[in-house]
Amino acid sequence: MSGSVTYSKDGAIATVLIENAGRLNALSLPMWRQLRSAFEELSHDRDQTRCIVLRGAGEAFAAGADIAEFERERYDVASARAYGKAIHPALVAISDCPHPVISMIVGPCVGGGLEIASRTDIRIAGEGARFGVPVNRLGLVVAYAELKALLDIVGPSVALEMLLEGKIVGAKEAAAMRLVNRVVPDKKLEGEVYDTARRIAEGAPLAARWHKKFVRRLLEPRPLRQDELDESYDCFGTEDFQTGYRAFLDKKKPQFRGR
Amino acid sequence: MSGSVTYSKDGAIATVLIENAGRLNALSLPMWRQLRSAFEELSHDRDQTRCIVLRGAGEAFAAGADIAEFERERYDVASARAYGKAIHPALVAISDCPHPVISMIVGPCVGGGLEIASRTDIRIAGEGARFGVPVNRLGLVVAYAELKALLDIVGPSVALEMLLEGKIVGAKEAAAMRLVNRVVPDKKLEGEVYDTARRIAEGAPLAARWHKKFVRRLLEPRPLRQDELDESYDCFGTEDFQTGYRAFLDKKKPQFRGR
Amino acid sequence: MSGSVTYSKDGAIATVLIENAGRLNALSLPMWRQLRSAFEELSHDRDQTRCIVLRGAGEAFAAGADIAEFERERYDVASARAYGKAIHPALVAISDCPHPVISMIVGPCVGGGLEIASRTDIRIAGEGARFGVPVNRLGLVVAYAELKALLDIVGPSVALEMLLEGKIVGAKEAAAMRLVNRVVPDKKLEGEVYDTARRIAEGAPLAARWHKKFVRRLLEPRPLRQDELDESYDCFGTEDFQTGYRAFLDKKKPQFRGR
Repeated sequence: MSGSVTYSKDGAIATVLIENAGRLNALSLPMWRQLRSAFEELSHDRDQTRCIVLRGAGEAFAAGADIAEFERERYDVASARAYGKAIHPALVAISDCPHPVISMIVGPCVGGGLEIASRTDIRIAGEGARFGVPVNRLGLVVAYAELKALLDIVGPSVALEMLLEGKIVGAKEAAAMRLVNRVVPDKKLEGEVYDTARRIAEGAPLAARWHKKFVRRLLEPRPLRQDELDESYDCFGTEDFQTGYRAFLDKKKPQFRGR
Repeated sequence: MSGSVTYSKDGAIATVLIENAGRLNALSLPMWRQLRSAFEELSHDRDQTRCIVLRGAGEAFAAGADIAEFERERYDVASARAYGKAIHPALVAISDCPHPVISMIVGPCVGGGLEIASRTDIRIAGEGARFGVPVNRLGLVVAYAELKALLDIVGPSVALEMLLEGKIVGAKEAAAMRLVNRVVPDKKLEGEVYDTARRIAEGAPLAARWHKKFVRRLLEPRPLRQDELDESYDCFGTEDFQTGYRAFLDKKKPQFRGR
Repeated sequence: MSGSVTYSKDGAIATVLIENAGRLNALSLPMWRQLRSAFEELSHDRDQTRCIVLRGAGEAFAAGADIAEFERERYDVASARAYGKAIHPALVAISDCPHPVISMIVGPCVGGGLEIASRTDIRIAGEGARFGVPVNRLGLVVAYAELKALLDIVGPSVALEMLLEGKIVGAKEAAAMRLVNRVVPDKKLEGEVYDTARRIAEGAPLAARWHKKFVRRLLEPRPLRQDELDESYDCFGTEDFQTGYRAFLDKKKPQFRGR
């Protein structure tokens, strides 16, 4: 048994579940592939899905790649490169997913687990969560693309502190480092995360997707093209915009249809 | 009556005032144009002005664009593009102003109000201030250029949290998010802001303008040209530099003339 | 006597000492040259050295450039440019040093002292440390390259606040500004810094050097080339990686040899 990544939908909110019992949800090679598929499939569902919660089963978010697999799957440069070809597209599928993605973090969120959380849009942690990328003990290196996702969130000082020291930090320190958006008591975490998901799902879904797309784009150093700049005005041609500003003027709650 | 943006000067310190009574200083189209003119006129005054305070009248900073105008001014793609041609140059006029600009923030600083504050150099808030960009309820999107100004200050995690959730946060949370430089009791805000403006105005004005220019430039991804790099040495040819280092050696307070 | 910058080694940890008694370790022109040499020499030692601690003698980190020298060395554009040719390569030698560098900060860390600390990877301060770049009183400007190092750490709001106001802040405020990674009581500083250096030195040295190199590279806006992206896999060909993951699976402490 090598664990699984599955997803389910409840109205506008989808949940992606990382599960590897007894291994702190460490990700095996098949799980990385399932993680990719889950996000790619949810990315295509633009009618119903408006927000995704990404979580681990039980008392962990994810403990990273499964090191027990290394002897078979990631033992030299060539095999690591092949392994990277499974991991990297899964991480890209999260970043590129048009829907807002919230990480719900309990327990360990380390190594590849933190790389996964770094690709999501909002990170909410329980007080008992802990964070780190202690790969300095393994003698391996976080690849450029994964490092960039971490760096975009916490900046170079904190990224180097975590990587060079191989430090594991608690939720409060992670919040001070800006690694997570907020910390709540473990018992209140699920409520806080799904309340946040509902708030997001009640907003205009096209606006949310544009905002996510625009923020991701601005993190790339390439200059914006004119057609990209022009996209800022497309929202004004949507039904959602008509719904939104009229509801505001009428002091009513808007019901967006994502059109 | 659709409000006004005016300015006044008191020695080296100018004040730009956003005023729209009964509407939380929401900005009408004429006000955006006046905001632009105010900053462009002050930008030309390099002899007297050394620091600008940007504030709202009464108990608000600015509540953003005036949504009551949307039916007439911003109802589809073409009209929104025309409206953008009034807003955007006003925001650019703040960023491009050579003088240091301090936002003095009481009450709501939301939507376009926060976009304005994001373009200033230093944000000081009273404890009762509140911040947000709840455009997810309107179905509209923050344009790339405005989003970049926010992103430069708070980074992608906080920007997405604010935009996707449409959250309004108080001054303390805004400080933790780095949205404001500091928070003081509402009663002490005016004193703190003008003390800061005086401290800035006592420094060498050319150095302040270069520092502002250099920081803005470094936020653009384009590589620096050699003539830009060389500009780092121009300060050593100024009278202000002679005044400054000699005053330091003589343990006197320098009187800079901006030359 | 114009002070000195010297270094010493104790196993895998080297210490670089800035010393200018009675002048708060202000850096004279010869000291900037010695600072450069110290880091360039340590950069070549890839067999023994695994971490560098950079500190000042006595009760200061460094008070910046020695202004008493300005009348002789930095009095106009041409002399400032020549002076810059001593300072800048010293700062580059710190950034480009392959080894992790920790700043151990007591007392004043201002002007050029803060520029030096900004180039190191981790900044740990004692409670009595203080920080600032009050060059607005001197009428001079922080050059682009030095400003970028500060901006990468604290972002534009804090950088402009410090430069425009010429403010000196204490250690706690510096931590809130992200200027330092952490603050400890002055008496515990040396212990904390060398414990951190030892933790770093126990990790895989090649992984540390790659992480530092990758973070520095990502701070440059140039797009990554394919051969740079491929370097992410080189670690899997090292002896250290074999040592590391096997020690993990055997639940032993790895002994890395940097190969």
